[in-house]
Amino acid sequence: MKFKPLGERALVKLVEREEKTASGIVLPDTAKEKPQTAEVIAVGDSEDIKVKEGDVVVFAKYSGTEISLNGDDYMILDADDILGVVEE
Amino acid sequence: MKFKPLGERALVKLVEREEKTASGIVLPDTAKEKPQTAEVIAVGDSEDIKVKEGDVVVFAKYSGTEISLNGDDYMILDADDILGVVEE
Amino acid sequence: MKFKPLGERALVKLVEREEKTASGIVLPDTAKEKPQTAEVIAVGDSEDIKVKEGDVVVFAKYSGTEISLNGDDYMILDADDILGVVEE
Amino acid sequence: MKFKPLGERALVKLVEREEKTASGIVLPDTAKEKPQTAEVIAVGDSEDIKVKEGDVVVFAKYSGTEISLNGDDYMILDADDILGVVEE
Amino acid sequence: MKFKPLGERALVKLVEREEKTASGIVLPDTAKEKPQTAEVIAVGDSEDIKVKEGDVVVFAKYSGTEISLNGDDYMILDADDILGVVEE
Amino acid sequence: MKFKPLGERALVKLVEREEKTASGIVLPDTAKEKPQTAEVIAVGDSEDIKVKEGDVVVFAKYSGTEISLNGDDYMILDADDILGVVEE
Amino acid sequence: MKFKPLGERALVKLVEREEKTASGIVLPDTAKEKPQTAEVIAVGDSEDIKVKEGDVVVFAKYSGTEISLNGDDYMILDADDILGVVEE
Repeated sequence: MKFKPLGERALVKLVEREEKTASGIVLPDTAKEKPQTAEVIAVGDSEDIKVKEGDVVVFAKYSGTEISLNGDDYMILDADDILGVVEE
Repeated sequence: MKFKPLGERALVKLVEREEKTASGIVLPDTAKEKPQTAEVIAVGDSEDIKVKEGDVVVFAKYSGTEISLNGDDYMILDADDILGVVEE
Repeated sequence: MKFKPLGERALVKLVEREEKTASGIVLPDTAKEKPQTAEVIAVGDSEDIKVKEGDVVVFAKYSGTEISLNGDDYMILDADDILGVVEE
Repeated sequence: MKFKPLGERALVKLVEREEKTASGIVLPDTAKEKPQTAEVIAVGDSEDIKVKEGDVVVFAKYSGTEISLNGDDYMILDADDILGVVEE
Repeated sequence: MKFKPLGERALVKLVEREEKTASGIVLPDTAKEKPQTAEVIAVGDSEDIKVKEGDVVVFAKYSGTEISLNGDDYMILDADDILGVVEE
Repeated sequence: MKFKPLGERALVKLVEREEKTASGIVLPDTAKEKPQTAEVIAVGDSEDIKVKEGDVVVFAKYSGTEISLNGDDYMILDADDILGVVEE
Repeated sequence: MKFKPLGERALVKLVEREEKTASGIVLPDTAKEKPQTAEVIAVGDSEDIKVKEGDVVVFAKYSGTEISLNGDDYMILDADDILGVVEE
């Protein structure tokens, strides 16, 4: 099952970044903010979406719609809520 | 009795997706979120509606107007609230 | 006494649809949602109103202004609040 | 003392419509909704105001600004709040 | 000290209208609504302000910014909040 | 250290106007409203800002952002919040 | 790891300004307002962003999205929230 976003939207998958304190203790989930970094899986046809498949993006808090596809969790983001691209 | 949506709107019918936990236990309705997947039954004449009859779409939470036609439940969605198309 | 809507508006009369449960018991008004189906009586001159006299339309909840003319109850609807046309 | 509305506005005077129940009993004010019918007294210069002096209009609830001129009560309405014209 | 409004604004001075009841009793301030009639003292350069110095205008409730100049009280009104002109 | 406002903004410095009651008693700060008069120190490059360095302006209540530069307090105002110019 | 802002946005790093009272006592963090001065690290491609890498900017309170990159804290600002540039 695949998902094709419409218009100025992107389908993304959350990226779990390593979360260790200086002392090396891994923080439990309740002590961390929800990650805001995601990998782009698919984009709509609009020219106003400036990211492409494979980009790692940072998105605005409280944005996006969560959906579940084939048992995995994804988010659908509006172009306006994608703040920038992380380049390794 | 048929229904013709006006403008940038679509008439859709909710799709009940199988909802089983890993252990095979079927969740009662109160434990599940309202499904957000629907099949398109009819669309308005506007060029701004990018889906067609038969498409399976995901729509935004808290969007749409529920109506009952011939005893069945449908929703009328604005084009802006249709987030993407599910392709099997 | 007649009423001529201005601009992108329509004057409509509510359609009472038969409301019977499976067992044939007619529900009292307090157990039913307010009907959202209406017949178009007159429309404004704007090209942006896509319905015509005699059309049966579905309109958005909480929209419209109720008025009483010659002892009958009517509603004045904005074009944007008319979701579609019911075709028998 | 006269009043000239500016732009897309009309000065109107409320029309008291006869309010009798089927049994002929006149309802006291507290049992009636505020009337929403008014006669147009003067209009602004804008082309976007489609009513003229003498028209009887229906206007949206909770709209308009009440003013007192020469001891009489009037309302100033925006063109958008005038829903239609009553033709006898 | 003079004040030049910028853009679509007018500087006005409130007009105290005579406030007597039918019995001739002058109402104390707390029994009267704030007057909404004012004389135009100066206007901005915008073509969208349709009143001129000396006009007596009615303005919308809760609009305007009060300022004090040379010990007198004035209001600065946006053009949109000036509803019309009173012609004696 | 200098500050260059961007776009339709002005940097201003509050003007303390003499505040004496008729009896000559100087009011303490808590009895006075915050002054709304300021001198323009610098403006952005936009043509939509109609004031210039040295102008004394009146600005809307609750507008602007306070900043501290070289130990002095300033405000950054949007052009829309500058109501007019005081001419002595 | 680098971050490329999209559109009318800038990536900035907060600038800690010296905070000493007249008596020379350094205020603890809880006694100070959050600083609103930042250095621009990277900007998006839009012509509507008028600042460049290295500029020291003042930004509106309660604006921006905080992110952490390589262990350092940054903010992503919309062009509209950048009020001006500090020139030493």
